[in-house]
Amino acid sequence: MAIMSLVKERFSCIIEIHMAYDKSQKKKKSENISDWYNDIVVRADLADYSPVKGCMVIKPYGYGIWELLQAAMDPLIKEKGVRNGYFPIFIPISLLNKEKSHVEGFSPELAIVTHGGGEELSEPLAVRPTSETIMYEMYKKWVQSWRDLPLLINQWNNVVRWEKRTYLFLRTTEFLWQEGHTAHATHEEAWDFVLWAANMYRGIYRDYFAIPGFVGKKSESEKFAGAVTTLSFEAMMPDGKALQNCTSHDLGQNFSKAFDISFQNKDSKKEYVWQTSWGFSTRSIGALVLAHGDDKGLRLPPKLAPIQVIILPVQPDDSKQLTRSNELATELSSAGIRAEVDGREDETLGFRINKWEVKGVPIRVEVGPKEIESGSYLLVRRDTFEKFNSKNITKDVSKALASIQSNLLAQAEENLKKLTSEINNFKEFEEIMRTKKGFIRAFWCEDKACEESIKGKTKAGTRCLLLDEKEEKGKCVYCGNEAKHKWIFAQAY
Amino acid sequence: MAIMSLVKERFSCIIEIHMAYDKSQKKKKSENISDWYNDIVVRADLADYSPVKGCMVIKPYGYGIWELLQAAMDPLIKEKGVRNGYFPIFIPISLLNKEKSHVEGFSPELAIVTHGGGEELSEPLAVRPTSETIMYEMYKKWVQSWRDLPLLINQWNNVVRWEKRTYLFLRTTEFLWQEGHTAHATHEEAWDFVLWAANMYRGIYRDYFAIPGFVGKKSESEKFAGAVTTLSFEAMMPDGKALQNCTSHDLGQNFSKAFDISFQNKDSKKEYVWQTSWGFSTRSIGALVLAHGDDKGLRLPPKLAPIQVIILPVQPDDSKQLTRSNELATELSSAGIRAEVDGREDETLGFRINKWEVKGVPIRVEVGPKEIESGSYLLVRRDTFEKFNSKNITKDVSKALASIQSNLLAQAEENLKKLTSEINNFKEFEEIMRTKKGFIRAFWCEDKACEESIKGKTKAGTRCLLLDEKEEKGKCVYCGNEAKHKWIFAQAY
Repeated sequence: MAIMSLVKERFSCIIEIHMAYDKSQKKKKSENISDWYNDIVVRADLADYSPVKGCMVIKPYGYGIWELLQAAMDPLIKEKGVRNGYFPIFIPISLLNKEKSHVEGFSPELAIVTHGGGEELSEPLAVRPTSETIMYEMYKKWVQSWRDLPLLINQWNNVVRWEKRTYLFLRTTEFLWQEGHTAHATHEEAWDFVLWAANMYRGIYRDYFAIPGFVGKKSESEKFAGAVTTLSFEAMMPDGKALQNCTSHDLGQNFSKAFDISFQNKDSKKEYVWQTSWGFSTRSIGALVLAHGDDKGLRLPPKLAPIQVIILPVQPDDSKQLTRSNELATELSSAGIRAEVDGREDETLGFRINKWEVKGVPIRVEVGPKEIESGSYLLVRRDTFEKFNSKNITKDVSKALASIQSNLLAQAEENLKKLTSEINNFKEFEEIMRTKKGFIRAFWCEDKACEESIKGKTKAGTRCLLLDEKEEKGKCVYCGNEAKHKWIFAQAY
Repeated sequence: MAIMSLVKERFSCIIEIHMAYDKSQKKKKSENISDWYNDIVVRADLADYSPVKGCMVIKPYGYGIWELLQAAMDPLIKEKGVRNGYFPIFIPISLLNKEKSHVEGFSPELAIVTHGGGEELSEPLAVRPTSETIMYEMYKKWVQSWRDLPLLINQWNNVVRWEKRTYLFLRTTEFLWQEGHTAHATHEEAWDFVLWAANMYRGIYRDYFAIPGFVGKKSESEKFAGAVTTLSFEAMMPDGKALQNCTSHDLGQNFSKAFDISFQNKDSKKEYVWQTSWGFSTRSIGALVLAHGDDKGLRLPPKLAPIQVIILPVQPDDSKQLTRSNELATELSSAGIRAEVDGREDETLGFRINKWEVKGVPIRVEVGPKEIESGSYLLVRRDTFEKFNSKNITKDVSKALASIQSNLLAQAEENLKKLTSEINNFKEFEEIMRTKKGFIRAFWCEDKACEESIKGKTKAGTRCLLLDEKEEKGKCVYCGNEAKHKWIFAQAY
C-alpha cells in the first residue's frame, strides 16, 4: 500500500500540478498581463484589497520583500552619511502653499483632515503626499551656518496621494517609501547627491530586483512639482510599457528661497542652501511581479525572496521524510539561506508544488523515500523548471540561487534590448507603438506642444533624456524642427 | 606656545565645562523634572517641536534609539512566528463603529479626513488611532478554517490620537509604534500570547532600556477600549510618577463577534477566534530620558546609544591627534562598537565635552599629545564620570560599556525599590503621595467609585494588579470593604 501510494503520489504529480493549475489559474500573463497581474498579486499572498477605496493591504509575504529591500538600501543610505528621522504626517495647508509649483502639482491628490479631537480645525491639515514642506520648515530652523551643512536626513514612511481605483502596488492612495532630503552649501555638492541617489537606485534595481533600465532626466512637463531637474529610473515591462520606479530631484534653491533656508557662509555672507530629494516606493514590488512573473505565478529573484527554498516532504505523514526535511531546512538556514518546510498533510504534493510556484519561491526541494535512501535530493529551479539531484544541498542551493538571480537579470536585459528601438521617422514610431511598443529613442525638439501631440497620437510620452546622451544635430521626429538630443519615449504604467 | 596652549586646553577644561554648562543649561532635573525634560530632549537633539499642533519631529539622534530598539525587538517578534505586514492608515467610520466600547474609547481622539482628491468623501475616514478594526475586517476574510490559525501579524507604523499640547515623546498626536495582532483557535493559546508579549516587553525594558518595572493587569476602568483584559508594563520615574509604556490585550471574542471572524473547527463546527493585540511605542524614549538623565543631560544605556563612544582629539588641528582618533574609531567600529570622532576645530575641548555629555554618550575618549606618546588613552564614563587610562581600548571600552549598562539598571532598580511602599492605612497613602510618591501596594475592593475617590484625593490611580499577586483576605485601603488583592497605585505621566 505504501509503495502504491508513493507511486501514485510521485508519478501522478505532474497531472495534479496541471489540474491545480487549471482549476486555480484563470489568468495568463501571455494573454492579458493586467488581469494576470491583479490575479497573481492576490493569489501569491503579496497583497489584498482593503475596505478603503484606493488603499491596499500589504500581506506578510509582500511586506517581506519590502523588508529585504530596506535591509539592502538602508546601509547604502547611511554609508553616504544620511541619517533616518521622522517628521509629522500632517502638513498645514499654509506650509504646502509656500512653494507655488509644488502645491499646484499636489493639490488634486490631497487627503484633508478637517476635524481633530472632536472639533473643526482652524486650519485644515493635508496628509503628507511627500514631505518637502514640513521638513524644510524645520530645516530653516536648524540651518544657520555653513557648519550645519550638509544636512542629510531620510525617512522610511507612508504617504498619501488620492486615487479612486486601486492597482495593487502600482497605484494606491497610500504607499510606503523612503524619502531622502538633503541641503548643501553649493549646487555642485547637491547635484552630486542627485546623481548618487539615482545611481544607487539603478544599482538596487539591477542587483536585487534583477531589473535593468535607464537613468535619465525628465522633461519639463514631467518633472517633480518644485524641482529644477528630476532624474528617474525607467524600467521596461514585458508588455512594452515603461514603469517609472523612483526619482531623484535637484531642487535648486526653489524651496530654500520659499522657506528661507539660509546660512552664513565662510565669509559671513547669507546664502540660500541647495537641496535634493529622492524617493523609492513599494511600487517597486509591482515592477518585480510584472518583470519576472510567468503564467504559473511569480518568479522572485533570490535576493528579494522572503523564502528562497521550500522543502516538501513527499509524504508529510512519514516521520522520516518530515524529520529529514526539517534537518535540511536547519542546515540551509545556518548557511544564511531562507528555507522553510511545507508539510501540510491535507494538501497533496501536487497542490503544494503549485502553491509555491505561484509564490515564486526560487528553489523547491523534494524529500521522498528515494531521497531518504540515497541522501540525494531533488532540486527544482522556479525560473527554468530545471531539475537536478544534489547530495551537497547547501553548496548546490547556494550555486543555484546565484544562477537564478543572474538568469532573471539576463532575461530582463534581453527583454529591454528587444524592446528598445531606434527609429527614423514618425511613421515607424507609430507603427512600433501599435505593435511591440517598448522604448523608442528619437530626436525631440523639447517643445511641450510637440510632446503632447506625440502622446495624443501614440500614448507614448517622453520618459527621459539619458544622462550620457551627447548633444547632436538632428530633427524632431514629430515636427521636424531642430533637435539637440535623442529622448527616450514609451507608453507607461 | 604649543605647550602653553595645550596646558591651557587640558587644565582649564574643567572650568570651561562648567562655564558651558552654566551658560547653556538653565534647567536642573533635581529642581523641576518637567522643565528639565522639555529642555534636554531638544538640546540633546532627540526631537523638536513641529509646526503641527501636538506633533513632534524625531531627529536622527532620537530616531537612532528607535532603530536600535527595532533591531532588538523585531527578531523576538519574528522568532515567535509573527510576520510584519502593512494595513491602511485610513479607517472608514462605519468600521470603527462595529465594536462599541472600542469606538467610545477612541472617538474623542480621532483625526478625521473629510476630503480626498478635491472632493468631499461620502464616508469620512479616521486616521488610525490603532488598527484593530481595519485589520480585523481583513482577518474575517482570511480566516475560514482552523488550518488558517493562528494568524500572527505585526505592523511597525504611525498612529494618531489627537492631543492639543505636545509633551515630546510622552504625549504627541502622532507617534510611532509596533502593534501585533493575533487570532487563535482557543482562548488558552491567545492568553499565552498576551503573556508572552507583556514579558517580552519587560525583557526589552530591562535588558535594553535598563528600566525595571511591574507587569500586571489593568483595572476595569483603565483597560483598553474593547479588551477583556489589559496587561501593562509600569515603570517608576525618579520623580515618583509611574509611566505606562506598553500594553498587551486579551481581546477575547469581543472583536471576532463584532467582525464575524469565525472558523470551522476540526469537527466542522463554526467558532469565533480568540484575539490579542499588543503595542510598544516611541513613548519609551521619553521613559529612557526621564529614568536615566541627570542635571548634565542624557545618560544613554549603551545598548540603545546611537553613539557609544565619542572620541575627542584635544587639539583637532593637530594632524597626529586627529589621525590617531580616526584610527581608534576604526578599531572600535570593527569590534562592533558604535564610535565617532568629534574634531570640530571651532569648538574648544570643553565645549565638545559638554555637548556629548548632554547627548549622553556612554564613553568619552580623549586623545592629546600625552596619549599619542604613551599609547594610553583617557576614558571617561558618562554614568559615573569615572576616569581611567587604557592601552587596550577595544577591550576596556567593551568592559566599560557592559558595566555602564548594568550600573544604570542597578540605579533604576534602587530607585524602584526606594519608591515602592507598603502601607497600612489611607492616611499613610495620602502622606506618601504628598511627599516622595512612587508605587503604593495596597488592598483595594475593586469598586470603581472607590478607585475614583482615591484618585480624587491623591491623584494616584490604580496602575495594575501584579500577575503573581495571590488572593488574600483584606480590607480596602479607602472604604474598608472586603478586598481580595493588593493593587499597585501611583500618580502617572
